Formats: sequence, C-alpha cells, structure tokens
Amino acid sequence: MVHDGQRATTPTVQQLGERKVLPRVLAQLSPAQAAKVGPGDDAAVLTVEGELVITSDTMIEGPDFRLDWHNGFDLGWKLAATNLSDVAAMGARPIALTVSLACPRETGVELLEDIARGLDAACQHLAPGCGVVGGDLGTAPVLTAAVTALGDLQGRAAVLRSGARAGEVLAYCGQLGLAGLGLSQLFQNAPEKFEVAVRAQLRPEAPISSGMQAAGAGATAMMDVSDGLVLDSARLAEASGVTLALESECLLRVFGSQNGQQVPLEAMLFGGEDHRLLATFAAEVRLPPGFHRIGEVRASASATRTSGHETPALYVLLDELACEPRGWDPYRPQ
Amino acid sequence: MVHDGQRATTPTVQQLGERKVLPRVLAQLSPAQAAKVGPGDDAAVLTVEGELVITSDTMIEGPDFRLDWHNGFDLGWKLAATNLSDVAAMGARPIALTVSLACPRETGVELLEDIARGLDAACQHLAPGCGVVGGDLGTAPVLTAAVTALGDLQGRAAVLRSGARAGEVLAYCGQLGLAGLGLSQLFQNAPEKFEVAVRAQLRPEAPISSGMQAAGAGATAMMDVSDGLVLDSARLAEASGVTLALESECLLRVFGSQNGQQVPLEAMLFGGEDHRLLATFAAEVRLPPGFHRIGEVRASASATRTSGHETPALYVLLDELACEPRGWDPYRPQ
Repeated sequence: MVHDGQRATTPTVQQLGERKVLPRVLAQLSPAQAAKVGPGDDAAVLTVEGELVITSDTMIEGPDFRLDWHNGFDLGWKLAATNLSDVAAMGARPIALTVSLACPRETGVELLEDIARGLDAACQHLAPGCGVVGGDLGTAPVLTAAVTALGDLQGRAAVLRSGARAGEVLAYCGQLGLAGLGLSQLFQNAPEKFEVAVRAQLRPEAPISSGMQAAGAGATAMMDVSDGLVLDSARLAEASGVTLALESECLLRVFGSQNGQQVPLEAMLFGGEDHRLLATFAAEVRLPPGFHRIGEVRASASATRTSGHETPALYVLLDELACEPRGWDPYRPQ
Repeated sequence: MVHDGQRATTPTVQQLGERKVLPRVLAQLSPAQAAKVGPGDDAAVLTVEGELVITSDTMIEGPDFRLDWHNGFDLGWKLAATNLSDVAAMGARPIALTVSLACPRETGVELLEDIARGLDAACQHLAPGCGVVGGDLGTAPVLTAAVTALGDLQGRAAVLRSGARAGEVLAYCGQLGLAGLGLSQLFQNAPEKFEVAVRAQLRPEAPISSGMQAAGAGATAMMDVSDGLVLDSARLAEASGVTLALESECLLRVFGSQNGQQVPLEAMLFGGEDHRLLATFAAEVRLPPGFHRIGEVRASASATRTSGHETPALYVLLDELACEPRGWDPYRPQ
C-alpha cells in the first residue's frame, strides 16, 4: 500500500515541455457527460440547468500528502474524492472537475499521468458521468494540486449546514475514524498492521448517492466530515445555532468495529479525513440507508458560553459533557 | 509600484488559526449576483441557466509572481483578471470565482486580506456582478493561489479556438506587448521608467465586454493571449487547422505606441501576460469596438510541415515568413 516517490522517473516534465506533457495527461481522462467542450480551449463548456454547487480544495505535498505514502493514482483518487464529497454534502450530483497541477521541473511525467488516472477512476467509481473538464499545468517547489468540483442539484434544494433545529436526530453515514487511524499508522511506519485504515486514509470514498438520498429524505442540515467529528459538528451546530449532543453508546455500537478494524472512541471523535456525511433529520423521518443515529439536536447553549472562549466548546456535548473541538487547523501543526 | 513583501507583518496566520483568519478574509468580499449561497458551507450554490464555461488557473510564488514586485492587492487583482480573461475569451459573462489560498504559517494575515481585496476589486471593476463564492485556506512552502472562474454564455454559442477558416480576418483587441515589457523592467529593477508597462504586468485588465461583443458580432474563433502572440496564434491555428498570417505593418501601426510607451515588434510577438483577445471574423464583418486587423487566416500549410518538428512553426507567418513560436512554457525556464 505504501509506495516509493515517483519524482525521479524519466522523462521529466522539463525534458518534455508542456506541449508534450499535456496530451499525455489528457489521454488518461474520460469525457464528462455534461461537457459540451472538454479540456483544450480557454475554458470548458458545460450544459446545466437550475441550481448548481461549486467547491474547491487544494492539496499540497508536505502539509496535505507525502509521495512516499501516496502513489500518483491514490493521490488523484483522493483529490477527486475529497471534492466530490463536498458536492455530495450539499445533496448534489457531481458533474465536472477542474484540476490545476503544479510540480517541480524534475518531476517524471508518469506521476502526472498516474494522478490523472486516479482522478478519472474516482469519478467513474464514485460519481459516474462526472469527469475532468479542464485545468492547467505549472511548476511549484512541491507537488500542488487544486481541484474545483461542480454539482447539479437536479431540482433539489441544497442542504446547508444551517438548517438543524432542536428536537431533530443527528446521524452519520459511512466509516468514522478509520482515516485518522490510517494516518497514525503511516506516521508510525506500520501500514500493513491496519490496511483497512490506511486505505481509508489514502483512497477515501465519497458518499455521492448517500448525499442525494439524504437530501431526498429531507435532511435539514448536512456536511462532509473532513476535520474530525467534534470539530465539524461544532461548525454545523454554530451555523444552525444549536447544540449537538453526541452519544458515545451509539458511536461505539455502530462504529466500534469497522471492516474488522477496532476503532476507539477517540479516533471517531477527533480523527479527520473520513469524508463521510453528518446530517440532521426530523425525529419522525426514517433515516436513509447507511445513516445511523449518533445523537440529537438541542437548543443552543451558547448563552452560557464563556466569553472570550476561542472555540465553541458548548456547541457539542458528548454524553452531556461539553466536548472541546480538536481537529485539523492547517495553520497550526498538530 | 513595487512593494516590500508583506510576509512578516503580524499577526501571522499561525498566531490566529484558521477560525480567525477566515472571517477576516471573507470580510473583504462582496456577494456574487448569481450566488444563492456564498462562502461558508461545503459548497456555494449558484443559479444558472443553459450553458456555462469553467476555467482554472494557479499562480505560485516564484515561477508566477514575486512578492517584492506584487503587493497583495495587485496579486489578487491579477489572479481574478487572468481567469476572467479566459471566460471573456469564450464570449461568456463571468459570474463566480472560487479561490484556494495556501501560504507559509509565518505569513501575515494582512497579505491574505489584501489578496481578497484585490480579487474583489477586480471583479467589481472588470466583471460587475461576479464575485468570490468559495474556496479554501491551507499551508504551502510558498504562497499558492488557485482560482476557478465560471461564466454564463447567456444563450450565445461559446467561441472556441477551432472555428477559424481560410479567408477570414485575424484581429486583436487591447494592449499588446506591454505586460512583457513591464516584466523586463521589473527584472532590471527599473520599474519607474515604464510605469504603464509595469502596471500592465502587475494589474492586467480582462476584456470582458469585448469578449461578449466579439461573440455577438460573430467571431469564428477567439482566445486569450497569455503566453505571447505568436505562440497563442500557433495554438489557435493548430486547433482550427489553418495558418495565421501576421502583418508587421498592421502591428506596428496600431500597437507601436501604447499609452505613450513605445512597444517594439519583438515585444508584441513574444511578450506574454497581456490577457487580451485574439479573434477571427468573416471578411465582411465590421470588427467590434477595440478590435484591429493584424493579419488574415490562410489554408493550412501543415502538409509541408517538417516531420518531427516539435513546434507548429508553419502555422504562423510574419510577413510571409514562418515565425517560430517562442513564449512561456512553465516547465522550461526562459
């Protein structure tokens, strides 16, 4: 699962020049259904109707990934999946990605081809019909990949973070805590011990159909959990002006063992990068497939919040106790 | 015009953390007309109809800009303008940008605020109604900015690079060669000598209304000239399967003096980053305001092209002689 960096393969992008690199990258990509004009012009042309969603996310070698952990294919996959997941979290169907790739001049062209293959495979597997429609190539001191994803709401209302109301059910869909465990294993250089977790970290799966089903079932609020359950719950709670009360008994029962991997509560609460869905539903709604109750929505406790407190700790409770958000802040090394 | 780098200002993004940096950046931005939901959720929600265009471009400190030349405002402006220009080159009206900014942890938050101000000002000045609707923040070894722009074709057909036909007129709109001259002045550390050119380099203006007018007037092919007139002409010629015959007499007469600045032919042909429009029109069409004839479209000479020649030199003629494309290749230092 762990691969050597591929930077040194030949020919390098500098040897080939942009004119020869670009067709080799484009050759890995399948067309997007919505694209009337794909890559190669000043812009791509898409056919759309009604409302769409747009989201961008950038991954940079060092803070966001390491080439001795991610091979190009996995990196391309993860780039697509993390953006597709944000589209899913709005209840939309992904229709197109743009991708900007910048790398050192000594980078082997195969790495860029592998990234393109991973992007394409993730689209085909996770969001059929979606594809890369454009982007650009450039140079940077480290490998830098910026992705934008577009999604079609297909007439549904977008599910925002701000719609949760007291009395509703808090639910979660998909694996929880595995990706964070996988990251720990990679840091400890022991990936073979927990292959399921390492795979969750390297090649996450975006829950496209679950997002659309949740929107169809009347989810009142939804978001992609990328920075840790407690931190992202605090964000949803703050946007909605509510308190979210997590129940450890639910979490342990549903997510204590995933794919044969024991997952401790700590990993569920504070691990990041699972890229699955947190959503709220009216109490009487039957939860869509894959969603499990993990707590409930309460009226906001923010009136009693300690003034000057930096993080909205009181927005999230675990078993009735305030749960301090900890999780990914890009500016603050963990 | 040249400013000290602002990296060292305090507080730094590391001191503040993402939770405090984000609102300071968002406070600089005006809403986009098409945005039903702007920044702050997993994705922005846009209302669109019919066909849209999408384009992405990334700028990285070092290869693409230097903070001792660009202050944050100019950098934000240029980020917006270069992407808006690609939208204009399709004949579309820009409606939204997403922006991913990554920087070293010791970066002062003011630099990010200034970039946001520049992005917003460029949208308001160049493409009223367009605005930043989303993006993300992160860290990188050098300042890294990835922008995606969306445009609405408003029922017009997109103007591609591939529509030029023999017998048509080749035309150009806007300044030509100034931005490249400005870059030379910055490299020579003498920006005050040619302030008009330096301004063209640091704060280009995207020709939004000219692009829409050209599309309305029946432009058969169009593109943004960002990498040099000859190189981009070769791209348009190759996409259309034609030869483009440039006429130095036209170029010198129209563009030999711009804003009081003498511009040599060499700068017009091979300077980059003007971000203005090259387009072709049927011979009988009255050129839209701002467009000037610079040559004509001929049948392709590619049958006589030397086999194995890397660049499509014969696609572009200057005064009947083959003109070798030279211009920006990100992978090959100039």
